[in-house]
Amino acid sequence: MERRNVGILGATGMVGQRFIQLLHNHPWFNITWLAASDRSQGKTYGEACKWKLDTPLPKHIAAMTMQPNVPQGATGELPHIIFAALDSDIAKELEPKFAAAGCAVISNSSAFRMAADVPLVVPEVNGDHLDMIEQQSWRKDSGGYIVTNPNCSAIGLVLALKPLETKFGIESIFVSTMQAVSGAGYPGVPSLDIMGNVIPFIKNEEEKLQEEVAKLLGTLRGDEVAMLDAKVSAHCNRVAVEDGHTECVSIKFKRKATREEILAAWSEFDPLHGQHLPTAPENPVQFEDAPDRPQPRLDRMRGAGMAATVGRLRECPLLDWKFVVLSHNTIRGAAGAAVLNAEVLARLGKLKPVKPAAVTA
Amino acid sequence: MERRNVGILGATGMVGQRFIQLLHNHPWFNITWLAASDRSQGKTYGEACKWKLDTPLPKHIAAMTMQPNVPQGATGELPHIIFAALDSDIAKELEPKFAAAGCAVISNSSAFRMAADVPLVVPEVNGDHLDMIEQQSWRKDSGGYIVTNPNCSAIGLVLALKPLETKFGIESIFVSTMQAVSGAGYPGVPSLDIMGNVIPFIKNEEEKLQEEVAKLLGTLRGDEVAMLDAKVSAHCNRVAVEDGHTECVSIKFKRKATREEILAAWSEFDPLHGQHLPTAPENPVQFEDAPDRPQPRLDRMRGAGMAATVGRLRECPLLDWKFVVLSHNTIRGAAGAAVLNAEVLARLGKLKPVKPAAVTA
Amino acid sequence: MERRNVGILGATGMVGQRFIQLLHNHPWFNITWLAASDRSQGKTYGEACKWKLDTPLPKHIAAMTMQPNVPQGATGELPHIIFAALDSDIAKELEPKFAAAGCAVISNSSAFRMAADVPLVVPEVNGDHLDMIEQQSWRKDSGGYIVTNPNCSAIGLVLALKPLETKFGIESIFVSTMQAVSGAGYPGVPSLDIMGNVIPFIKNEEEKLQEEVAKLLGTLRGDEVAMLDAKVSAHCNRVAVEDGHTECVSIKFKRKATREEILAAWSEFDPLHGQHLPTAPENPVQFEDAPDRPQPRLDRMRGAGMAATVGRLRECPLLDWKFVVLSHNTIRGAAGAAVLNAEVLARLGKLKPVKPAAVTA
Amino acid sequence: MERRNVGILGATGMVGQRFIQLLHNHPWFNITWLAASDRSQGKTYGEACKWKLDTPLPKHIAAMTMQPNVPQGATGELPHIIFAALDSDIAKELEPKFAAAGCAVISNSSAFRMAADVPLVVPEVNGDHLDMIEQQSWRKDSGGYIVTNPNCSAIGLVLALKPLETKFGIESIFVSTMQAVSGAGYPGVPSLDIMGNVIPFIKNEEEKLQEEVAKLLGTLRGDEVAMLDAKVSAHCNRVAVEDGHTECVSIKFKRKATREEILAAWSEFDPLHGQHLPTAPENPVQFEDAPDRPQPRLDRMRGAGMAATVGRLRECPLLDWKFVVLSHNTIRGAAGAAVLNAEVLARLGKLKPVKPAAVTA
Repeated sequence: MERRNVGILGATGMVGQRFIQLLHNHPWFNITWLAASDRSQGKTYGEACKWKLDTPLPKHIAAMTMQPNVPQGATGELPHIIFAALDSDIAKELEPKFAAAGCAVISNSSAFRMAADVPLVVPEVNGDHLDMIEQQSWRKDSGGYIVTNPNCSAIGLVLALKPLETKFGIESIFVSTMQAVSGAGYPGVPSLDIMGNVIPFIKNEEEKLQEEVAKLLGTLRGDEVAMLDAKVSAHCNRVAVEDGHTECVSIKFKRKATREEILAAWSEFDPLHGQHLPTAPENPVQFEDAPDRPQPRLDRMRGAGMAATVGRLRECPLLDWKFVVLSHNTIRGAAGAAVLNAEVLARLGKLKPVKPAAVTA
Repeated sequence: MERRNVGILGATGMVGQRFIQLLHNHPWFNITWLAASDRSQGKTYGEACKWKLDTPLPKHIAAMTMQPNVPQGATGELPHIIFAALDSDIAKELEPKFAAAGCAVISNSSAFRMAADVPLVVPEVNGDHLDMIEQQSWRKDSGGYIVTNPNCSAIGLVLALKPLETKFGIESIFVSTMQAVSGAGYPGVPSLDIMGNVIPFIKNEEEKLQEEVAKLLGTLRGDEVAMLDAKVSAHCNRVAVEDGHTECVSIKFKRKATREEILAAWSEFDPLHGQHLPTAPENPVQFEDAPDRPQPRLDRMRGAGMAATVGRLRECPLLDWKFVVLSHNTIRGAAGAAVLNAEVLARLGKLKPVKPAAVTA
Repeated sequence: MERRNVGILGATGMVGQRFIQLLHNHPWFNITWLAASDRSQGKTYGEACKWKLDTPLPKHIAAMTMQPNVPQGATGELPHIIFAALDSDIAKELEPKFAAAGCAVISNSSAFRMAADVPLVVPEVNGDHLDMIEQQSWRKDSGGYIVTNPNCSAIGLVLALKPLETKFGIESIFVSTMQAVSGAGYPGVPSLDIMGNVIPFIKNEEEKLQEEVAKLLGTLRGDEVAMLDAKVSAHCNRVAVEDGHTECVSIKFKRKATREEILAAWSEFDPLHGQHLPTAPENPVQFEDAPDRPQPRLDRMRGAGMAATVGRLRECPLLDWKFVVLSHNTIRGAAGAAVLNAEVLARLGKLKPVKPAAVTA
Repeated sequence: MERRNVGILGATGMVGQRFIQLLHNHPWFNITWLAASDRSQGKTYGEACKWKLDTPLPKHIAAMTMQPNVPQGATGELPHIIFAALDSDIAKELEPKFAAAGCAVISNSSAFRMAADVPLVVPEVNGDHLDMIEQQSWRKDSGGYIVTNPNCSAIGLVLALKPLETKFGIESIFVSTMQAVSGAGYPGVPSLDIMGNVIPFIKNEEEKLQEEVAKLLGTLRGDEVAMLDAKVSAHCNRVAVEDGHTECVSIKFKRKATREEILAAWSEFDPLHGQHLPTAPENPVQFEDAPDRPQPRLDRMRGAGMAATVGRLRECPLLDWKFVVLSHNTIRGAAGAAVLNAEVLARLGKLKPVKPAAVTA
């Protein structure tokens, strides 16, 4: 695979930092451009960012100069690929500018997830939806486009549900989440609000989770996604966990399924097999048999943070089956999801390579 | 109300300590007897107990001598009323001995909750079930009996559900809990298991919650409780909270209910009104309108820890309505529940008073 | 004692909320005026404040209208007594205006603590320093003045040290603190910074602690405080505790002291005895003998949050003695300290009473 | 380097698990023997152990059969090298048996640390003390010996102090620790004791820290270690941190040192340079310039958990300088320390290699 230059928009936030961590030493991608808010422009990344990850900030990244957060005015060439980790309001304004300028915008924001011509994609779940980019007017005009990945609370859930939907059909989904504080960014949740506490509310989260699940598990028919015809009810909670969203799920199937059939569906699920994508985990859905798992501290880093762990499969007195699913919210649920989308797009030939000479050291 | 002497069995554990805290300065009850495991017998309470509450251990309690944990051999007279805070296995063995000896055993254990002739009672919910004690053979033989209160995860839930069941009828209940570590006693949950973590499993808790709700909301017909005919599905989780269980609930009613009707049902719910029970809160179910409430740290002490707080009432895409309920697990959910049961029994004339002269200072 | 009307400046912050909690039902003081930032003016307190305490916000306080944060323009009369809980920069600007307007400003801010004519007072430690108000030009012009209480990290320490300084003389002090997040206000410390973590730095805290201890334990000679002539070295740390500052202390005395003499000095220390101040704890310094105490969760509420708890007294291989001291940082260390200062000033006749008719319901 | 077979004694505890994590894929060592308590004997490791680390338990380790915890009766050959992670009482009994049987016992226990003929070693600090093994009677009889590494609270401290002691001489040390819960093993610290709390006491920890520092910084003269002649005073605290001990240090030197000299001493400190030990970090003492560092969450994994991070260097009003040091307590402070000791012993030719044929897959 030829190397690509990539940029990160919103590079100083929690998800932006995860992009840097995941793209550092990436075999295909090379970070050449960083931008965040206006006030960080012109500073080095090291000055502009309060690094919060437990791996060291790479020195050459720390030394990079923050660029303007618009396509114009970049020192050197603007990379063709932009990973965007922006607040929704800002994304709504900035992402189209980069798409119009010909960039492949791989976005983690909610701004365009539900737009009719924007794919909302988890590669293992609905990679075929990526075709939707060809409808985008930007694509036709400049070659640019926007691809989105889902909310951090939706991604683990749809990974667990997809193989079940394929085999048994899903009629109803009940999900109650316990979400990590890193999902709220930095400074995010005040310590006085969450230490020894639960906040049973995350603004707009239940709505996003409910509608994104329907689109992700929907079917691309021509130009349009036919949403999954299932009832979804979500309760979203914030808990005192640093990383890793835990979700209690009850589901009703269209066809009866046995415990063994469900376990088989999960273990056989490996739709990216053979594609050799650097960020794809070996088994995207891993079943853990111990009665008290999955747990955020013990299971979030499976598959380098890209696998979802399921456990506690048992019958539900109300629907058919209950289980628990856990995934890392800023890796699988955000930056890693976007990087994996980019890898798939690279395999599909939808990302322009850079000539090797242009790769900076 | 004449004063009663009371004893605490299992006095050194977390719930035992709450009993001491709640009964200290109680206007009707006077602690005269304490017992715990065999190895604490003969020690003072101060020596036997690692006091973990943030109010001081009363000095005269600290100086009391731990008694044998059987009816025989007490220094002085055995009190007629025994508050029991024992592990289920031990409760199964010891509680009947005290009932046989003529004691009113007010038990927080799960050992006899589902027994056919033992009332499982939350006074605001099914106080009439207390009549079941008259069926107990101990009652007939010695006057003694066993009365139980529910699991800490069931009690807030049934308080919130009872006024709704009365008005609209309940068909299905989905509940996902986030339970405090104090519910597991001391030493209980290791810090390495829960700091920055969620444990999506509490042994036997989902089963208890499901069956106890059906009995508590059931109807006493003659000698028997007809269980509530509703489907109940529980997901039980342990979170990093010291005190206070938070529960996400979805319900389906038999008759349609509007938001206003539900709020009215909660605000009008005050079945103990006029009884002047010292431990009964003014409003057992308090609705909090702020979008991010109830929260354990902010709401668990409402009504001195005896009120349940409900919030986030909203429509459920799957059943009819969703809401969140919170209650203090070691006060309302354990020791306070038992004390309130005893107060109701005292009003009913089912507790023998002591002659004032017998009250120790 | 005649009732006084009081106002709270900075009423919506964490310390402001504690003022409301502590002054609600205060036998001498009556809250009649509330102010905070410009943007809260005109709102009700309930609208302006995100209440974070676990006791309910009193309804009549919630309904009060926020006043301008300057002496002019108040609806109704400006109270003579202003409790101020402002950031230092703002305090520097606003507090003198209220003093100039004739108010007794009882300040929790650091702005004027080290000013030559402003008393920095903990009543049990250096109540005689209150005489310094008579030097203030505001006092001479309008009758108004400023009185300050120390930083939350200094107050528990000086309570523990004062009886030892009196009896044995202090030569050197080493103190290493573990401070609660509530000390940083709200939103204050981001959860991502403190969960499962320690921050070994609080801006300016070590400097404040070192210099305030010297003034608090200093001697008023005529118009001036002669600072304590002792070396003080502080290490200040933030830890994952909601309320309660824990401090490890080593000290060297001028005269040798035995363990018994130190314990006696602490237990006999009761300088406010007989004054019947509502907020003064019975024993301001309480020794706890258990080897693993004091602890924030178990000991911060002693004396209704106004007592300091000492423990772990043992010999120091480097200086003379080591011990641990703990106090509640937003009660004893902030709002409660200011209220106690006001009570002492009331006893001294330095607060103007209101005529009973002016007291609002 | 020829491969060695190694065993782990106490393999199921927190430190035992770290041994497995660190020795898995180790280039020189090959785990062939595991033992823990009597009741685990005969079980597989997967059955006997509650794995608590966030990297997966290697499958071939999970399948290994737990051996008797004495030299006799092992299935297959007893490895020459035993990493021991035992409680002190048990270590006192078992470790000599393995030494007598000819094993190199690399111990993390406190049982023999202060024994006159047992080296207490941190390779970067006092690697030359390893010569002491030649005095041990076991060594003379069977070739076996015991080597120990220090308490987890001492190791970061002596790494930071060693280069300063060498250059400036140390006269006095004041240290106040904030120690992680993993240092207490599993189940260890109950969550009710540490959530939102500080425990200012760890049994025997201050004594161990004080005496071990003196031995580690002492000088081997002939057969004996001359202890460092410095006063050491420790305050040890447990805080709500999973991994990583933070220590506030004040020191007095024999010769004056400037800030630049101290920073230079740390940055030049690299005594294992050129030895190519797999577990040795590149820079064992790393200075971090940001004002609020080091922090456990951000810095404990430097050098793969083997580097100590220092920061906040500033003048001390009482002694000469103050700083903060942080190190990972179960890697650098326990299992990693032992593995590094073994690597040094291998370089010194004091570990018998296995013949390649004997290495299990």
